[in-house]
Amino acid sequence: MTSNTAYARLESRFAKLSHLDQASGFLHWDMSAVMPEGGAESRGEQLASLASLGHDLLVAPEVEEWLKAAEQEGLEGWKAANLREMRRDWLHASAVPAELVEKLSRAGSSCEMVWRKARPAADFRQVIEPLSILLDLTREMAEIKSQALGVSPYDALLDQYEPGGRSADIARVFADLAGFLPGFLAEVLKKQGAAPAAPEGPFPQAVQKEIGLEMMKSLGFDFDHGRLDESLHPFCGGTPDDVRITTRYDEKDFITSLFGVIHETGHALYEQGLPKQWRHQPVGKARGMSVHESQSLLMEMQACRSRAFFRFAAPKLARQFGRSGWDADQLYNATMRVEPGFIRVDADEVTYPAHVILRFRLEQALIARELSVADLPAAWNEGMEELLGIVPPDDRLGCLQDIHWYDGAFGYFPTYTLGAMTAAQLFDAARKALPDLDGDLSAGRFAPLLGWLRENVHGKASRYSTDELLRQATGKPLDAEIFKAHLRARYAS
Amino acid sequence: MTSNTAYARLESRFAKLSHLDQASGFLHWDMSAVMPEGGAESRGEQLASLASLGHDLLVAPEVEEWLKAAEQEGLEGWKAANLREMRRDWLHASAVPAELVEKLSRAGSSCEMVWRKARPAADFRQVIEPLSILLDLTREMAEIKSQALGVSPYDALLDQYEPGGRSADIARVFADLAGFLPGFLAEVLKKQGAAPAAPEGPFPQAVQKEIGLEMMKSLGFDFDHGRLDESLHPFCGGTPDDVRITTRYDEKDFITSLFGVIHETGHALYEQGLPKQWRHQPVGKARGMSVHESQSLLMEMQACRSRAFFRFAAPKLARQFGRSGWDADQLYNATMRVEPGFIRVDADEVTYPAHVILRFRLEQALIARELSVADLPAAWNEGMEELLGIVPPDDRLGCLQDIHWYDGAFGYFPTYTLGAMTAAQLFDAARKALPDLDGDLSAGRFAPLLGWLRENVHGKASRYSTDELLRQATGKPLDAEIFKAHLRARYAS
Repeated sequence: MTSNTAYARLESRFAKLSHLDQASGFLHWDMSAVMPEGGAESRGEQLASLASLGHDLLVAPEVEEWLKAAEQEGLEGWKAANLREMRRDWLHASAVPAELVEKLSRAGSSCEMVWRKARPAADFRQVIEPLSILLDLTREMAEIKSQALGVSPYDALLDQYEPGGRSADIARVFADLAGFLPGFLAEVLKKQGAAPAAPEGPFPQAVQKEIGLEMMKSLGFDFDHGRLDESLHPFCGGTPDDVRITTRYDEKDFITSLFGVIHETGHALYEQGLPKQWRHQPVGKARGMSVHESQSLLMEMQACRSRAFFRFAAPKLARQFGRSGWDADQLYNATMRVEPGFIRVDADEVTYPAHVILRFRLEQALIARELSVADLPAAWNEGMEELLGIVPPDDRLGCLQDIHWYDGAFGYFPTYTLGAMTAAQLFDAARKALPDLDGDLSAGRFAPLLGWLRENVHGKASRYSTDELLRQATGKPLDAEIFKAHLRARYAS
Repeated sequence: MTSNTAYARLESRFAKLSHLDQASGFLHWDMSAVMPEGGAESRGEQLASLASLGHDLLVAPEVEEWLKAAEQEGLEGWKAANLREMRRDWLHASAVPAELVEKLSRAGSSCEMVWRKARPAADFRQVIEPLSILLDLTREMAEIKSQALGVSPYDALLDQYEPGGRSADIARVFADLAGFLPGFLAEVLKKQGAAPAAPEGPFPQAVQKEIGLEMMKSLGFDFDHGRLDESLHPFCGGTPDDVRITTRYDEKDFITSLFGVIHETGHALYEQGLPKQWRHQPVGKARGMSVHESQSLLMEMQACRSRAFFRFAAPKLARQFGRSGWDADQLYNATMRVEPGFIRVDADEVTYPAHVILRFRLEQALIARELSVADLPAAWNEGMEELLGIVPPDDRLGCLQDIHWYDGAFGYFPTYTLGAMTAAQLFDAARKALPDLDGDLSAGRFAPLLGWLRENVHGKASRYSTDELLRQATGKPLDAEIFKAHLRARYAS
């Protein structure tokens, strides 16, 4: 095989696309962490031009020819998988006419702008029209992608975030959880006593930052290939060779920032562990949003919100904040509070899935025209009552709380809970492979766990489907029982 | 005129090119101010892909057609000037075959890598071969551009940095300076007494930064459209809507950082003052390197290294560093030391032009094959003796000191001294237009000066040639007499 094969041409084209994407990644990081406000308009233009150039390069006629020709080249292994991922990227990009992409982008921006005012005013009526327009265009795109991918319209949207994800499979595991959670929640609430005393601040920002950096180091973050900065909404950005994570600080509460940093470090470790030799190819990218979220939640919820981790962290935290008498179990308990609430991003591990299941049901109904935009608030409140037993007093605390839909992201929500379940299943497998995992975590030794993740998840990138990746790593497909067992062990044992 | 004219198509294409350039600008800033070392390889790839995409968009066949058609559209004013600048950008890009661009880029990188080792070792022999290869390729490009632009090969290189700049004009003003400076230098050195006592450190970095930020504010820097950060080599980057300047701090010496910040602020004010309505068009960009350098040197050397400015700055500096007894004249005198030295970047205002004149002579001779690379050190040392009366003890302090040639930048050096002369001439005109300029500077009021620059320089962007811009602002072409008068007034009065 020479460098003149169709496959080689594709590799070269996709490398260029990756460079453009990476450039956009840094411009996004800069926008959130560094850029003064007056740079916003120009930044928008820079990003739009990079996106449109990338789109043009991907849907150019020669790419389709190369794809067809390369599919006759008898490729195997990583290259075959890379070609599969190239085809997938191409399908998503080429299916939708440029005009519709443009319309969607404009409708998303308009709707988001209205939402930014409607949310604080708790006034859902403002968004009815722009959201309806956005939904119509989204359905149009879903229909087109549905034909190109041979799946249902909702699954075509889901596939953008979760390659190969199918709503029927998700509905099955979510139904399992939805059947379990209300009873379990009641049990936990009954068993749970009064709120334990949490340590009182102030916790100086500089010390919190120092602790965050040290924790990242303990977890295995490579500072030669990444940084920690601040932003209003914490995220993990940049590129695998230079991962930029952010956090924000509250001097009254160090726990949120600490676990925020641990969460983003989980994302970052995935990126840093992607195979270098496939750096700029589709097969070398992270598998999808649920696997990505599994890596952050594995570190945050499985490894670190644990008694073992607090044995390592409590004395360290007390020392750095200059406190004494902090007990590992007491700190652990203070972070373990379960309480039904209206806001998803503030939810604990037990109630979080209910927020996601509600959104998953509603967005399917919206896309299928089984629910009208005008009826969304009522359906929302009904679902909250069913799943969590509470009803939001207004839409600010209800269906206006998340940006996703108002920005055009339908099909994204389920990946949060798929990620939580995947995290539990992977950690369970890691625990079986690493008999002294609790001892490791109690000593702040993350290398064995990270090694296991590198081998079973990070290093495999997009070589396999999400389902196959999970089967190889854990011996079975996604199984709600393991997540339920985790919740039982932590909250009801 | 509708949006379907050839000119309108060109505007749209050049806007896209500007967005790509701006994206690269931020990636460069990030590389110097933020990026961890491990990101370097990927960053190089991102920048190379952006550059090659931009090049392809600029030399695409339709652009030449649009240029020809637009030149028949009878444009006037800013649009006509914009078209002229588009043609210029296109000429530079399209003249050189992609293969030669590629070779030059590789030869530049190789030579620079050798130079990075040869300089500390003071071993010129190491660079003879790579510099010769780089020079051959540079001459090849210069020949090609010479034919496209209808100027000499050296002028074709100069034109890359100084649009419309011609070596014959530069030689004339430099000859004037070269005739004046040795005698003047002798006079200054004779008159100048023992070095005055400079304030002693340490000067805490945090205080220096605070002072730098306040000084930027006084000068008129708009922090809604820019930032100050740190980097090893201070520079002004970013874009007009988001200018990123950098500095570095030395706790033993606050003067260097302070005037470094003022220098870069001069560059930044030019960028921030470019006309918003031409933001992404060639005519809306800064005029060229000599005008750009004139804006930094006008702020640094003309406005701020002055007795008037120190009357404003001295009490402020003393207060912020918690010192007392700092006298404005004494501080001013401490920054006014003249002394011939080997290193250009450390040179004072009087001896700096000698460094540039030497390089200008030598690079012309190198391009014209009148000087061989092997003979460069001897020619350098001879020139230093003639112009400054000193001979470097080795090539590290001689012809190996600057990166420019080893990176392939021939034709750049003269812009430094053209900038210094232009700064003197503009400041002289501003002084005539603003009778209380000294009073303003003594009170830290920069608005009148900035207003004059906005009107006469910044707001005109690339609407006129450098020569025309200077004539409109000062009533005459570049005139060495004004720079000489400035030096006489400051150092020999």
